[in-house]
Amino acid sequence: MGENKSVKSDIQIAQESKLKHIKEVAESIGLTEDDIEYYGKYKAKITYEKIHSLKENRDGRLILVTSINPTAAGEGKSTVTVGLGDAMHQLGKKVVIALREPSLGPTMGMKGGATGGGYAQVLPMEDINLHFTGDLHAITAANNALAALMDNHIHQGNQLQIDQRRIVWKRALDINDRALRQIVIGLGGPSQGVPREDGFDITVASEIMAVLCLSTSLEDLKKRLAKMVVGYNTSKQPVTVGDLGVEGALSLLLKDALKPNLVQTIEHTPALVHGGPFANIAHGCNSIMATKSALKLADYVVTEAGFGADLGAEKFLNIKARAANIKPDAVVVVATIRALKMHGGMLKSDLQHENVLALEKGLENLQKHIETIYNFGLPVVVAINRFITDTDAEINTLTNWCTEQKVPVALTEVWEKGGKGGLQLAELVIEQIESNKQTFEYLYDLNLPIEEKIKKIVQKVYGGSDVEFSTKAMKQLKEFQEFGWGQLPVCMAKTQYSLSDEPTKLGRPKNFTIHVRELVPKLGAGFIVALTGDVMTMPGLPKKPVAYQMNIDEKGRAIGLF
Amino acid sequence: MGENKSVKSDIQIAQESKLKHIKEVAESIGLTEDDIEYYGKYKAKITYEKIHSLKENRDGRLILVTSINPTAAGEGKSTVTVGLGDAMHQLGKKVVIALREPSLGPTMGMKGGATGGGYAQVLPMEDINLHFTGDLHAITAANNALAALMDNHIHQGNQLQIDQRRIVWKRALDINDRALRQIVIGLGGPSQGVPREDGFDITVASEIMAVLCLSTSLEDLKKRLAKMVVGYNTSKQPVTVGDLGVEGALSLLLKDALKPNLVQTIEHTPALVHGGPFANIAHGCNSIMATKSALKLADYVVTEAGFGADLGAEKFLNIKARAANIKPDAVVVVATIRALKMHGGMLKSDLQHENVLALEKGLENLQKHIETIYNFGLPVVVAINRFITDTDAEINTLTNWCTEQKVPVALTEVWEKGGKGGLQLAELVIEQIESNKQTFEYLYDLNLPIEEKIKKIVQKVYGGSDVEFSTKAMKQLKEFQEFGWGQLPVCMAKTQYSLSDEPTKLGRPKNFTIHVRELVPKLGAGFIVALTGDVMTMPGLPKKPVAYQMNIDEKGRAIGLF
Repeated sequence: MGENKSVKSDIQIAQESKLKHIKEVAESIGLTEDDIEYYGKYKAKITYEKIHSLKENRDGRLILVTSINPTAAGEGKSTVTVGLGDAMHQLGKKVVIALREPSLGPTMGMKGGATGGGYAQVLPMEDINLHFTGDLHAITAANNALAALMDNHIHQGNQLQIDQRRIVWKRALDINDRALRQIVIGLGGPSQGVPREDGFDITVASEIMAVLCLSTSLEDLKKRLAKMVVGYNTSKQPVTVGDLGVEGALSLLLKDALKPNLVQTIEHTPALVHGGPFANIAHGCNSIMATKSALKLADYVVTEAGFGADLGAEKFLNIKARAANIKPDAVVVVATIRALKMHGGMLKSDLQHENVLALEKGLENLQKHIETIYNFGLPVVVAINRFITDTDAEINTLTNWCTEQKVPVALTEVWEKGGKGGLQLAELVIEQIESNKQTFEYLYDLNLPIEEKIKKIVQKVYGGSDVEFSTKAMKQLKEFQEFGWGQLPVCMAKTQYSLSDEPTKLGRPKNFTIHVRELVPKLGAGFIVALTGDVMTMPGLPKKPVAYQMNIDEKGRAIGLF
Repeated sequence: MGENKSVKSDIQIAQESKLKHIKEVAESIGLTEDDIEYYGKYKAKITYEKIHSLKENRDGRLILVTSINPTAAGEGKSTVTVGLGDAMHQLGKKVVIALREPSLGPTMGMKGGATGGGYAQVLPMEDINLHFTGDLHAITAANNALAALMDNHIHQGNQLQIDQRRIVWKRALDINDRALRQIVIGLGGPSQGVPREDGFDITVASEIMAVLCLSTSLEDLKKRLAKMVVGYNTSKQPVTVGDLGVEGALSLLLKDALKPNLVQTIEHTPALVHGGPFANIAHGCNSIMATKSALKLADYVVTEAGFGADLGAEKFLNIKARAANIKPDAVVVVATIRALKMHGGMLKSDLQHENVLALEKGLENLQKHIETIYNFGLPVVVAINRFITDTDAEINTLTNWCTEQKVPVALTEVWEKGGKGGLQLAELVIEQIESNKQTFEYLYDLNLPIEEKIKKIVQKVYGGSDVEFSTKAMKQLKEFQEFGWGQLPVCMAKTQYSLSDEPTKLGRPKNFTIHVRELVPKLGAGFIVALTGDVMTMPGLPKKPVAYQMNIDEKGRAIGLF
């Protein structure tokens, strides 16, 4: 994010930080040694017994951090989330941060890590960015166990008469691997299974990830798993995990993964890092188990939803908030001068030069997201994530614009200064919570038909004019209605770079149409996925993956994570 | 194993057991809290610092547990290994057990678990049988990251000119999934990668599992990873992980997986459970890191090699012992009356009936394995793993036969009685170690050509007469010699059920030929795999997988593991 501000890399800063034993961090929010299970000295899971015992506690206030549409310049949303938590901690507030856990795919591909940056990081960053406590691996295992059990069912006589041309359950790996997007399996003759088309999604796009994140208990998890649709039988009726009878096995594989993970920031602020669906191809929020536990443990909870407010925040508010029965008290929209200038038409290579005109033009992207949050009835604070290349003229332009719009705005320097760089933001957020009662309401009623829900999101959140459904999607709308799935919310899968479904349309495109090419039923998660544009549920690796820089030093410490 | 002896299942016994905090178990072998990293209260990894500091300690004595060829009746080798460790513990010896970690594939398929049985189990059995400390998941991740990076290299211009028809690196999952044995990937046009034939192995068959088990340090691990062959270029020269430049990333993914895992038995005997290659398709022994650490921490180490002495023990002695520079002091060969009767021609359904004649006939299988161990210059003790259906006449027949053959023999009842049921065995083993100095030597010299090494194994260990190489294998023998790989040991992939490569030939088949259909170079592991008969490197699920019985109860405890 603010790489230019310091010669030190994120991993250097992280490795130079002195961590507290996680026992101490737990104690700071009233958790005893019996309430947690250690994973090394600096990571722990909270036990179900403890979570259950918290039920009667009063909920703290919930702050949702979102952002403008991200660009190649980076907006630093996780960094601001961590820094805001640290700032509240410095102000003496009882605060818990609730984040998603990173996926290995982008860590080894383009991204290098997803634990904040600079002096606003959650630690131990290497562990969290690699295998952490194994949650994603457990999801991968459960996802692929289900696939194997289904293919075995077909191979062993196919009592449920699953139509192998109509299977919707895909395999998954926590990796960027384009070669696995479209494959043919079961080749080699009768003893090698039944040949069919198949494909792998990245684990974070697996329905099991969504189920894990949206479950409110182990019991709820098992029920949701049983509802997942794996495909259709030869009579074109849906076949579920419950029909296969393997929800017990999947629950068993996930019994520890459902427990929230406790870690700390560089400043020892407690953070629950749990669940990691992407916001472009999944619902993009950390787990309900973690968010609700955090609300019971703290007076203030700072959480993040992935990518821009058009993706993560929309899904947080329409899907997660509904499933969890929670409401944010304030929303922070993160913006950077650099990213706004790109939205205003500048090339990434020119961003170090001052350009107030481009900035002014790019503000329309920020404006749309602020409008969206106001549409939900929630107070907004804009956080400017400062970079060293930002000029005073640029900062003033953005600040003045916010003031004109009557939107509270704060300059943050958490990358460089940790919580200290976010004090102004923290004070402003607390002030907003105290003075502006939220009047939150969902964007759409669940009783609306699926196509109407999608249209509402497109018009109210993306600012588009219309939705076009492919022939396949049209047919599915009808079928899903018949199957009784019409009352589910919609999880949009869309590019994160644009409000539209075309990644190159930056700024605030208008009068555009969103193209829904396919719908995917996710009955366990409790939503219908709408795949728009060319969005892929399995990313590819770039020409020079970060993996080439990843290494260990002679002491076994990580190198090459950012 | 001894399921008939008690109405309680293994998991019931396990869940009723009172575990000590792993800190106490660690203390019992001189490990402080600083020397270990917790994974919950009952699992820990030993730090590299501690392992390094043990270097100057004197080695304890090493006892290798092997068995006759397993049958559907079960031989209970892990159970005896654990029980023998517990018995030595009861005798006041400083003992550490060193076992392999189970694979989820068979746990969900036929087997249900692999942590011993009855009152001779390692705990917590649910965790060890499921995700444990994530070692197998880390190996899966590294295996598939390599595959994705290689396919990405080809897609992005293929600078190394990898011939996609000659790729030997396969993807891997820790699952039984026959439909993934033969697949076609990269379909769907130019943006989805380059189409080619591919397949998945089970993770325990991955070369990375072998590398992890045979590495003596993190540095050695990285060197071995770099040597792994992924395929051949268009000039038919081998392409390695080092050529791709990703051994650093793979090492980083494996940096925690290489640390041995400490757990305890029901009787609190310390056990290192680490690394889990199958013995039929891989080298079948736990990790060198664990075995060597155990030897430094204890006076007696009890370890196990997979399946019969023809597979696990042969590879322990020719591959692992060579790589680790260790020698067993005694070998225990486990036999059951039931399995010997099957080797003598009885059907599984008749085994509850006494049949001394069948037993006498089946003894030839035991005899061959005893001869094999003597051929290596090692003392043998036969352990009879007693079942409730065994009659006195049968036990006497086996005991008398051993006495006639001058082979020490002990009756063990560790399934029912824990360590107490193995005291006689423990005393006999200690006596053998004290009185019979081993005169261990490898079966073959590394300078012999590959085909000669295979012939030696076939003739001396399997008792076969000849080896037949397929046309492909013949060509490979020549190529491998040219590439300078001729001096590597051989890792045989063969059915576990028979001394021959035909699973149905029980007892002691003679004058048979072993058919080598293909050779696979595993330069990181440091051996050449010889695939014989129809042996599969990806198992399938049975008609009624154990997964259907797996579940969680209302408190989140495991159900349906055996």
